[in-house]
Amino acid sequence: MTSLERCRQLLHLRNPLLANTLTEFYATCLLLFIGIGIVCQFELSNKSLNTWVQINFGWGFAIMFCVYTASKTSGGHLNPAISFMFYTLGKIPFSYVIAYSVAQTVGAFIGTALAFLVYYDQIWHTLGAERIAVGVNATATLFTSMPAPHVSNTIAFYDQFVGTGFLALFVIVVIDKRIDLHPSIHALLIGLLIAMIGMAFGMNVGYPINPARDLAPRIFAAMIGYGTEVFTYHNYYFWIPIVAPFFGATFAAWSFYIFVGFHIPDNEETVPLKSQLDL
Amino acid sequence: MTSLERCRQLLHLRNPLLANTLTEFYATCLLLFIGIGIVCQFELSNKSLNTWVQINFGWGFAIMFCVYTASKTSGGHLNPAISFMFYTLGKIPFSYVIAYSVAQTVGAFIGTALAFLVYYDQIWHTLGAERIAVGVNATATLFTSMPAPHVSNTIAFYDQFVGTGFLALFVIVVIDKRIDLHPSIHALLIGLLIAMIGMAFGMNVGYPINPARDLAPRIFAAMIGYGTEVFTYHNYYFWIPIVAPFFGATFAAWSFYIFVGFHIPDNEETVPLKSQLDL
Amino acid sequence: MTSLERCRQLLHLRNPLLANTLTEFYATCLLLFIGIGIVCQFELSNKSLNTWVQINFGWGFAIMFCVYTASKTSGGHLNPAISFMFYTLGKIPFSYVIAYSVAQTVGAFIGTALAFLVYYDQIWHTLGAERIAVGVNATATLFTSMPAPHVSNTIAFYDQFVGTGFLALFVIVVIDKRIDLHPSIHALLIGLLIAMIGMAFGMNVGYPINPARDLAPRIFAAMIGYGTEVFTYHNYYFWIPIVAPFFGATFAAWSFYIFVGFHIPDNEETVPLKSQLDL
Amino acid sequence: MTSLERCRQLLHLRNPLLANTLTEFYATCLLLFIGIGIVCQFELSNKSLNTWVQINFGWGFAIMFCVYTASKTSGGHLNPAISFMFYTLGKIPFSYVIAYSVAQTVGAFIGTALAFLVYYDQIWHTLGAERIAVGVNATATLFTSMPAPHVSNTIAFYDQFVGTGFLALFVIVVIDKRIDLHPSIHALLIGLLIAMIGMAFGMNVGYPINPARDLAPRIFAAMIGYGTEVFTYHNYYFWIPIVAPFFGATFAAWSFYIFVGFHIPDNEETVPLKSQLDL
Repeated sequence: MTSLERCRQLLHLRNPLLANTLTEFYATCLLLFIGIGIVCQFELSNKSLNTWVQINFGWGFAIMFCVYTASKTSGGHLNPAISFMFYTLGKIPFSYVIAYSVAQTVGAFIGTALAFLVYYDQIWHTLGAERIAVGVNATATLFTSMPAPHVSNTIAFYDQFVGTGFLALFVIVVIDKRIDLHPSIHALLIGLLIAMIGMAFGMNVGYPINPARDLAPRIFAAMIGYGTEVFTYHNYYFWIPIVAPFFGATFAAWSFYIFVGFHIPDNEETVPLKSQLDL
Repeated sequence: MTSLERCRQLLHLRNPLLANTLTEFYATCLLLFIGIGIVCQFELSNKSLNTWVQINFGWGFAIMFCVYTASKTSGGHLNPAISFMFYTLGKIPFSYVIAYSVAQTVGAFIGTALAFLVYYDQIWHTLGAERIAVGVNATATLFTSMPAPHVSNTIAFYDQFVGTGFLALFVIVVIDKRIDLHPSIHALLIGLLIAMIGMAFGMNVGYPINPARDLAPRIFAAMIGYGTEVFTYHNYYFWIPIVAPFFGATFAAWSFYIFVGFHIPDNEETVPLKSQLDL
Repeated sequence: MTSLERCRQLLHLRNPLLANTLTEFYATCLLLFIGIGIVCQFELSNKSLNTWVQINFGWGFAIMFCVYTASKTSGGHLNPAISFMFYTLGKIPFSYVIAYSVAQTVGAFIGTALAFLVYYDQIWHTLGAERIAVGVNATATLFTSMPAPHVSNTIAFYDQFVGTGFLALFVIVVIDKRIDLHPSIHALLIGLLIAMIGMAFGMNVGYPINPARDLAPRIFAAMIGYGTEVFTYHNYYFWIPIVAPFFGATFAAWSFYIFVGFHIPDNEETVPLKSQLDL
Repeated sequence: MTSLERCRQLLHLRNPLLANTLTEFYATCLLLFIGIGIVCQFELSNKSLNTWVQINFGWGFAIMFCVYTASKTSGGHLNPAISFMFYTLGKIPFSYVIAYSVAQTVGAFIGTALAFLVYYDQIWHTLGAERIAVGVNATATLFTSMPAPHVSNTIAFYDQFVGTGFLALFVIVVIDKRIDLHPSIHALLIGLLIAMIGMAFGMNVGYPINPARDLAPRIFAAMIGYGTEVFTYHNYYFWIPIVAPFFGATFAAWSFYIFVGFHIPDNEETVPLKSQLDL
């Protein structure tokens, strides 16, 4: 037996709520660690070392690896809205939604701080002592979403409803047992999904589509000098990427079942036309 | 039994024509919702938040997820020309082609409207009240294909014949039972195929290669103020991306069978050289 | 039985040399049809509709789909140097190398012509009647490789030796029966391989790494007005991407076997350390 | 029996230390051959033929193919820090770490030289006889990492600790037997991982995250005229990408086990919530 297996015997947690919540904490911390790093490299290099396509693929791959990491314990929600959506489908009890959401948010906060440290010298070099939350020279978007002035909060709400909706919808598709995709590529596809959402719905507010991902770095930004403007900006916009994702994720997941999922034949049914693609 | 399974029992449609048509409606709606979003983000950010490579991969991933969504009911044609091509191969009856084509076009229209709403503020901010269909400042390409003046309609027809031809040809390759690719990656490859077509045949008219994808947003554009010029432009070009794909898809699919597909050995045949790649 | 199966019975070729050669002709024709389209979109849009990354991925995906197309008949060499390399490994008789090479070159020529037609209006619009093979305004690189003046033919030879070497080496890795990758992703990986070679070894002469891909469009270019300069340029450079790939492919494939491939344990051997990655 | 199998019988090495070390030498040589080629194409074309995204994907694919190459002998560490991390997990004896590290470094040196030769004319054309290691016109970054002046060595150490940490962490995830991903995609995911690290942690020092990859080309650069400044620069920064990766890789791998890996249920355990993603 290797030393690794001996450590496992010593430390192995058998309580699924505890083990899964620990996973959600850890994986969301990693996600923000990587993701904030990507945004910092983009903004601080004046978009020369990263372009928008790397924001898309970088965040996608970050989600992918964090979901793989968590795939055999919690499953890798990393997002309170996704946890809530699974609750409405009867997959996890509500107590899990609470525990996961707290763990995700705390993890996101710590991940943000760890990434901030990587780019500490660069931020100081580029921004100096200034922490401008709002306006032409604002840099709070290093951490959290700040919509352009000409985007109304109504559209912003719809935008987050839609973005998180597509996330939830296609997550459901990818893991649906009747659609039956190989488990090894589930997280890979979810990573590409994140990239796609950023290409289609990233312009209005920057596709946070995750209450933990948006709130935790916003608190961090307020603490390191951006102040309360990150909350008051744009008529208290900050609650929108927290609330809208819950509605969007749940609505979209159920729409999939109503339009498609409920009608996928079980194997024992006669399916005269299912074979149309088996040339 | 979860609440999800109880809902399934209540709502499950057993009629394949009905279920599959509903799927084609839903998935094509999603496709245009995402796809028009991608183009809007590209054009409205003045190509800073998306570049051409994101048009390619974004549409590719959109197709990929919509095909996965539909893979176990209709199969995910999302394109009247592809449905017609499958009819010529004897895979679906002609009544299905009609039903699917209508559902795809209606779905495409609704998806366009939903995406338009996401970018409503941005469109108003950038374009104001102006809806210019034709000319240097034209923005109808947010929705539908408008060829450059120096591209003749003859070449445009050939372009759409070729583009849709490659789509159909490689769709057939990907799902061919003798080529035998793992079903879990069928839609992934079809997504990359869309990206490739945009890289090779996107310059003349912007690779619509799908009658429903081109016509439905064109009608929508006409309705929101671009007027009938979107139909009369370029000597009534609009019929070309509707008609050419049917010919291209069918021609290309059959060319594959004649040159390659018919000659793939069945397993029972002696295939002395097939093993040349099994090093 | 579908009409498709009836046609198959009628047209099915059982002679493997004939069927495989037909496949090599068809798939190489498709490859150049797509590939020349990609380069035209790149050059004729003044690098706005394609950038170098799309050259890389576009050609990669083109190879991928053409190899999938041919995977169950010829295997999809699409390249005389690869066919020759397989001959040196004892996988195909020499007569096949000859037949394949001719079919690949003829297919490449026809594919080039078909792509030229797609961009006929664009070429006329951009270049007018001028066909300049050499110099600052030269456009012969739409079709074939033309090295920069400061790259010597010695380095060009080494460049093509190296580029085709990496192609052959990793093709061998991907399909090696002891490395045992799932057949469904063989062509996908070969596509990414092409992209990678373009990122690493594309600067000197544009990574033709394929005698058929380079020679056939060069002949086509000479015929449409670029004249014999496409052959005489750079001290008769044109023979280098024809000859160097044969040496590079063969050398590299054998180097893999000598350094790694011959030492991969068979399953029955005791392999105490092979399991080091099975954590 | 083919000639290939006869050669195998003649040359087959049965000693795993010898065979695996030879593999590590060969595959790391290939890795640097490709990777230095990518950087040269980026820098020497003034970032027109490669952009940062191709640095990311190019190095990712290079790792991917080199790991596939080595997957059935040494497993493809290609990095002394990764070999050391596996030692701490009890997977390989310490003697292997020594042998692999030497082989990786020597291989990296030779690979650098082979890539230098490919771009010999281009380097001469662009740089002439000048070899400037430090300053605005420095070109030593063709070969090795040189941090910007405003990045402290403390942050550089943390940066390399973090970058190599993510590498090791997700390598462990990808190959974990309980997470159970299909072996055919292990190296593919590791390739995407490299790309992601470059998008998130590439700005401070250029993500060497590999002692062999950084040291060997630095020695090469010193030998071809850059001189000892590549070692003395930035207060002897050069030791940081050699030392920090060992700590980062080991720390991160164990953190994964403590937070997640040790708690993944074995199949025989009752796992009431593991099924939450099996919709």
